[in-house]
Amino acid sequence: MGTNRLEAFSDGVIAIIITIMVLDLKVPADASPAALLHLWPTFLSYMLSFLLVAIYWVNHHHMIHLVCHVHAPMLWMNINLLFWLSLTPFVTAYMGEHRAAPLSVALYGAVQVMSACSFGLLRHVIARAAAGDPKLVALHRHARHKVVTAICLYLLSIPVAFVAVPLALLLITAPAVMYFLPDRPTEPA
Amino acid sequence: MGTNRLEAFSDGVIAIIITIMVLDLKVPADASPAALLHLWPTFLSYMLSFLLVAIYWVNHHHMIHLVCHVHAPMLWMNINLLFWLSLTPFVTAYMGEHRAAPLSVALYGAVQVMSACSFGLLRHVIARAAAGDPKLVALHRHARHKVVTAICLYLLSIPVAFVAVPLALLLITAPAVMYFLPDRPTEPA
Amino acid sequence: MGTNRLEAFSDGVIAIIITIMVLDLKVPADASPAALLHLWPTFLSYMLSFLLVAIYWVNHHHMIHLVCHVHAPMLWMNINLLFWLSLTPFVTAYMGEHRAAPLSVALYGAVQVMSACSFGLLRHVIARAAAGDPKLVALHRHARHKVVTAICLYLLSIPVAFVAVPLALLLITAPAVMYFLPDRPTEPA
Amino acid sequence: MGTNRLEAFSDGVIAIIITIMVLDLKVPADASPAALLHLWPTFLSYMLSFLLVAIYWVNHHHMIHLVCHVHAPMLWMNINLLFWLSLTPFVTAYMGEHRAAPLSVALYGAVQVMSACSFGLLRHVIARAAAGDPKLVALHRHARHKVVTAICLYLLSIPVAFVAVPLALLLITAPAVMYFLPDRPTEPA
Repeated sequence: MGTNRLEAFSDGVIAIIITIMVLDLKVPADASPAALLHLWPTFLSYMLSFLLVAIYWVNHHHMIHLVCHVHAPMLWMNINLLFWLSLTPFVTAYMGEHRAAPLSVALYGAVQVMSACSFGLLRHVIARAAAGDPKLVALHRHARHKVVTAICLYLLSIPVAFVAVPLALLLITAPAVMYFLPDRPTEPA
Repeated sequence: MGTNRLEAFSDGVIAIIITIMVLDLKVPADASPAALLHLWPTFLSYMLSFLLVAIYWVNHHHMIHLVCHVHAPMLWMNINLLFWLSLTPFVTAYMGEHRAAPLSVALYGAVQVMSACSFGLLRHVIARAAAGDPKLVALHRHARHKVVTAICLYLLSIPVAFVAVPLALLLITAPAVMYFLPDRPTEPA
Repeated sequence: MGTNRLEAFSDGVIAIIITIMVLDLKVPADASPAALLHLWPTFLSYMLSFLLVAIYWVNHHHMIHLVCHVHAPMLWMNINLLFWLSLTPFVTAYMGEHRAAPLSVALYGAVQVMSACSFGLLRHVIARAAAGDPKLVALHRHARHKVVTAICLYLLSIPVAFVAVPLALLLITAPAVMYFLPDRPTEPA
Repeated sequence: MGTNRLEAFSDGVIAIIITIMVLDLKVPADASPAALLHLWPTFLSYMLSFLLVAIYWVNHHHMIHLVCHVHAPMLWMNINLLFWLSLTPFVTAYMGEHRAAPLSVALYGAVQVMSACSFGLLRHVIARAAAGDPKLVALHRHARHKVVTAICLYLLSIPVAFVAVPLALLLITAPAVMYFLPDRPTEPA
């Protein structure tokens, strides 16, 4: 089985995840500037999630590109990744509506940990299937560093959220910046 | 007519079904841990449905892969399957919000019965069209056992839900486990 | 420009239209059988719309299949069709929630008129572009009869809705049955 | 990396954006003609947004068609465009529910400015990558005029909204008409 339908399904799910989040930008009850400004945290929360999910899409894209043959563990690990990503709209709304309350930021961080771990697991399964190709193995090993760094930062953000919310948000945003670094901006994560 | 657009449309519908269920994870009114924990049944209900729909996607994928030529009955049986699958978000929310009340679990089981029967019907139509190829016929016959078992367990879960909810949920989850059995984990259902 | 992306976009939009309608099946406030039965009209309304949109998808599929080259009027007529189809979830919810009140049935019929006319217009534009091919011209002419019949029945359903709702619903359902007639069940509309 | 998956993802996101807007057409509480007519501004707002997003889809389509090779800046500029387009459902609902209040029209115009600028940026990145091909360069230069005109009209609509709402709406609608002009109706923007 080829990668076509796996890509199509993942693209579909990720496209829906990234778009339905806008439904949580609820229209304010009155048309005053104050009511609109009150949406600010929800909007920022949406923007951050849009960016994070888009980065997953780009990296997913590059990673699947290296696969010739889809086997069962890849399918299930991919579904596992999509499951955790699908929780993003919920934690985005949760963090936005409660204006970055410590618990909501911690939960947001926790979902990022799970998503990044799932992405790492999917890469692990793909790398194992390509064990014969030294070039691919080196590529996957290099990419693993980035995922491990991201997981550590996300993990750290959970306890930090209860102490200093802005620092926790910084820790959650940092990996996104890391993926834009000049050397290989769209390299598989 | 080839299978491309049938696959694309089915992927689209299944991707939307699996993703919009997260909209039923409503953000709690306050940011307390208690309010968050109160979402537990809804979350579990979402997780179960995500898994079941994903299994349908994998099996649908494998089954359509065996088709060379789409004819009208396949199209309509496929639409029939998508219809019953599309009820999953509703029964998921129903079971989650009413915290697995007997009626809600029975209804969830009933929708599973209908989905599995529709899947069986689609396979039946596809198998009949491939009647000339003994290898495909054997493959479809083998796969039919799994579907029939699943239908029986789902059917049983309906009356059981009114006696013992946990047992009913076990009966609904069992077929999912069955599809992960080591021998042929992603074999067409 | 080929038909690939036109098909992909149309499939996407139709898949979303057909699936988001289930969001209007609102979970009842209590888990009693009475509350569930109260959803009956909404469910029937959903079922009817699912069937009608599915028929559009099948026919759209067959019609686009005959196109080699997409030109601007086809693109815009296709977008026009998608616009009217996209109103289906609204009128479905309207008819379901107001339990087939005359005005809601008439509005449902009116949206069907617009959708069928848009489909006819799209076919007209496609047929004109294929004017050189006598076989295609015959095929399109044959198919036009079905669309014209459907438009007439839908048009009739609007005034009839204010006199006899069941008759109006029958008029709306009739064209769907027509497309299942044995001779050429999935023939382009 | 080819353009296939970029197109598929963009199609998915645009298809969802264009379709979920209909969820903001809320079913009125009673089935009276008055309650239905009260939806008129929301409906017009939906119609305008459907048209604008559809025009983006057509132009996006044509523009990506000219790309042979996707590189990182294109990916990110494309994601940036999708982000601003994804705000359309929000401003559509905002303008519809507050019946074209000045602030809501200005915000609608502002989102159009951002979307058009993002589209221009994406074209800029694509044009730079095709700098070697004089024919493509001419094509992109020609198309840039349309985008710049659109941005100016959208920009103007923001202050005008606080003075004369109908004029602001006219300024927002004008670029849509411009894209239908007879000479090259589906030419890249």
